[in-house]
Amino acid sequence: MKIAVLGYGTVGSGVVEILDRNAKTIASRVGEEIEVKYILDLKDFPGTPIEHKIVHDINTIIEDEEVKIVVEVMGGVDVPYKFVKAALLAGKSAVTSNKALVAAKGEELLDIATKNNISFLFEASVGGGIPIIRPLNQALTADEFVEINGILNGTTNFILSKMTDEGSDFDAVLREAQSLGYAERDPSADVEGYDACRKIAILSSIAFGKTLNYEDIKTVGITKVSAVDIAYAKSLGKKIKLLASAKSVSDKVFAMVAPFMISSEHPLYNIDGVTNAVHVNGNMVGDVIFTGPGAGKLPTASAVVSDVIEITKTGGNIPSNWKAGKLELIDCSDFECQFFVRVKKEEVSIEEINSLFGDVNTLTLEDYADTEFAFFTKEIKEGEFAEKYSKLKGAISSIRVGR
Amino acid sequence: MKIAVLGYGTVGSGVVEILDRNAKTIASRVGEEIEVKYILDLKDFPGTPIEHKIVHDINTIIEDEEVKIVVEVMGGVDVPYKFVKAALLAGKSAVTSNKALVAAKGEELLDIATKNNISFLFEASVGGGIPIIRPLNQALTADEFVEINGILNGTTNFILSKMTDEGSDFDAVLREAQSLGYAERDPSADVEGYDACRKIAILSSIAFGKTLNYEDIKTVGITKVSAVDIAYAKSLGKKIKLLASAKSVSDKVFAMVAPFMISSEHPLYNIDGVTNAVHVNGNMVGDVIFTGPGAGKLPTASAVVSDVIEITKTGGNIPSNWKAGKLELIDCSDFECQFFVRVKKEEVSIEEINSLFGDVNTLTLEDYADTEFAFFTKEIKEGEFAEKYSKLKGAISSIRVGR
Repeated sequence: MKIAVLGYGTVGSGVVEILDRNAKTIASRVGEEIEVKYILDLKDFPGTPIEHKIVHDINTIIEDEEVKIVVEVMGGVDVPYKFVKAALLAGKSAVTSNKALVAAKGEELLDIATKNNISFLFEASVGGGIPIIRPLNQALTADEFVEINGILNGTTNFILSKMTDEGSDFDAVLREAQSLGYAERDPSADVEGYDACRKIAILSSIAFGKTLNYEDIKTVGITKVSAVDIAYAKSLGKKIKLLASAKSVSDKVFAMVAPFMISSEHPLYNIDGVTNAVHVNGNMVGDVIFTGPGAGKLPTASAVVSDVIEITKTGGNIPSNWKAGKLELIDCSDFECQFFVRVKKEEVSIEEINSLFGDVNTLTLEDYADTEFAFFTKEIKEGEFAEKYSKLKGAISSIRVGR
Repeated sequence: MKIAVLGYGTVGSGVVEILDRNAKTIASRVGEEIEVKYILDLKDFPGTPIEHKIVHDINTIIEDEEVKIVVEVMGGVDVPYKFVKAALLAGKSAVTSNKALVAAKGEELLDIATKNNISFLFEASVGGGIPIIRPLNQALTADEFVEINGILNGTTNFILSKMTDEGSDFDAVLREAQSLGYAERDPSADVEGYDACRKIAILSSIAFGKTLNYEDIKTVGITKVSAVDIAYAKSLGKKIKLLASAKSVSDKVFAMVAPFMISSEHPLYNIDGVTNAVHVNGNMVGDVIFTGPGAGKLPTASAVVSDVIEITKTGGNIPSNWKAGKLELIDCSDFECQFFVRVKKEEVSIEEINSLFGDVNTLTLEDYADTEFAFFTKEIKEGEFAEKYSKLKGAISSIRVGR
């Protein structure tokens, strides 16, 4: 089996490394050797062992009939889309770790693969090294999916865990995460929730069988989560986590990415640091949780290579539950949950709060008792809450409360 | 697709229920309906909807060419072995939830399936509803497996969790587990570790590629774990868990089932109650954990039906990493770990302990300080520890310490 790797960055070099280091084991599982024939990159890597595999023209790869699988690990959307589509149309299977590409173009690329009796796989696009796409497609197939909740972004989970452990503020921890290489210099894709949003769109499209348009998912990042919010959560034995969630309601789907305050009963409560996890609830199996490294060179490359192996072993089209068509999304304003709200002591009375939200339970945290207090609302629709919150005098912050 | 179900007990009736309740979803995923044509059982179930499907003679099923998949959910080894083998030899694929059958006869039945270009699948035999067999066979394929650790028996995990929460003794909690239906009247298969032993044998055979003979695995149950052992663990922020473990060392494998005292750093520390979990360490992906319901009618049946679906979708032989041949086991006496040891205060001095085990750190627990104290050994080989422990005066109990 001869393959081509598009992009010799972190993941691409990891793919080459795994195919080399685990060559014997992989060959014995697959029944043949997997050889990287070409690596497409802008650079030349002179003096390295892969120097002679480097090509700069995608057509060298597309036109070589010996190449049966193209591995796209470049990043971006437009160029990868052009290259992957060209490969599929030329009858080559394709593997990618690129969640942006899959979220934007998954339906079309899967359709081309099916029509050409080849495969388009993307295990690494969600949850890094965690097997989650293949379990949804091939293992939990007896179940109707009720709910998926994921901690799908390691950077934000690292930041929130660190804020919890150290009591530090968001900005300070973000700078630390950047210096450790856990966060990008432009961190918006992570901290604004855009990365998690694309990933829950992909998982939902597989679990619920049609495309969930990621642009339609309500997405709230963690930039407004403060050390004081976290101090309240800690005092209650709770944690604040960026959850990417999707729920099946009749034939429609509710989906959201937002920070939630969750209790120790929540299946993802113990997922800390850069670890990712996906909680799936099936109507027969109940709660299943997949946990592991959500990013990193070798974990991500491990998932990419597992896709290459699956295609090599199976041949033809490996079907996906993700079929053509759009999932119908439920308007987020109809989503019901509790909210945790902080208010300035001097600007609002408990009577005013009760008249807005019904009888609420208030709490104070000793360190901040001079200036503020907080309360939990009852279960309330998003839309209704937003309206009432806009009328609330002295409002400092609000956060959703998970089950 | 027409199938037969052997045994209409808890899991068998769950299989029929799922194929009925999720019929539409399953048919859309598979592309055809899956129909239970026969149910083999000793009883007749008169007046129930499945009455007309009941047969008492396995040959009715074996001789019916319409039946393509036989689902064995009877329990036991000898009769299921005879029936499954006959089905496979007649060219029918087989699915089982029966860990005893798979641990004892897996290699032979997989071999017959391969030779007849049909499949023998057993996702439900380990971890109930948790997808773990298929991820090992089809998802983590780029990795060489370094280590597997499982909490694979819900009954013992329930008992240990309850002992931890309530400070109760083993016997009292066992009786409660029996009255709740979490433990059998004869609990030995669970509490002596035999069930977990068969399950780690199955996982190891897949992960390491050859048969691990379950009878060769050192197996220690939880019957000797006392409330005082657990009190010490709690005081140290640790828990006692029945771990089923296998490690790859060069070309050999170390395997053991035993109670371990583990710290909060351990990947399985938070797995409490009847929940099962499997921790897999791959040389590329690192640590991945699969968590979910390890038993129960519908979770187990969900895994069984997912196997039926996989066979229906795929056709032919679905290959397993588990090939013919025996894994070479490392003598357990060479396994190194720390031990936690309790001794009677009046029967042994710290000097005597130090002269046996080298300098140790001792600790006392206030409630028991009058009569006993405890210590941790350094890392020491099992064999060496056993010899020294036999010479230790005043020894009360010992337990292995996990990382």
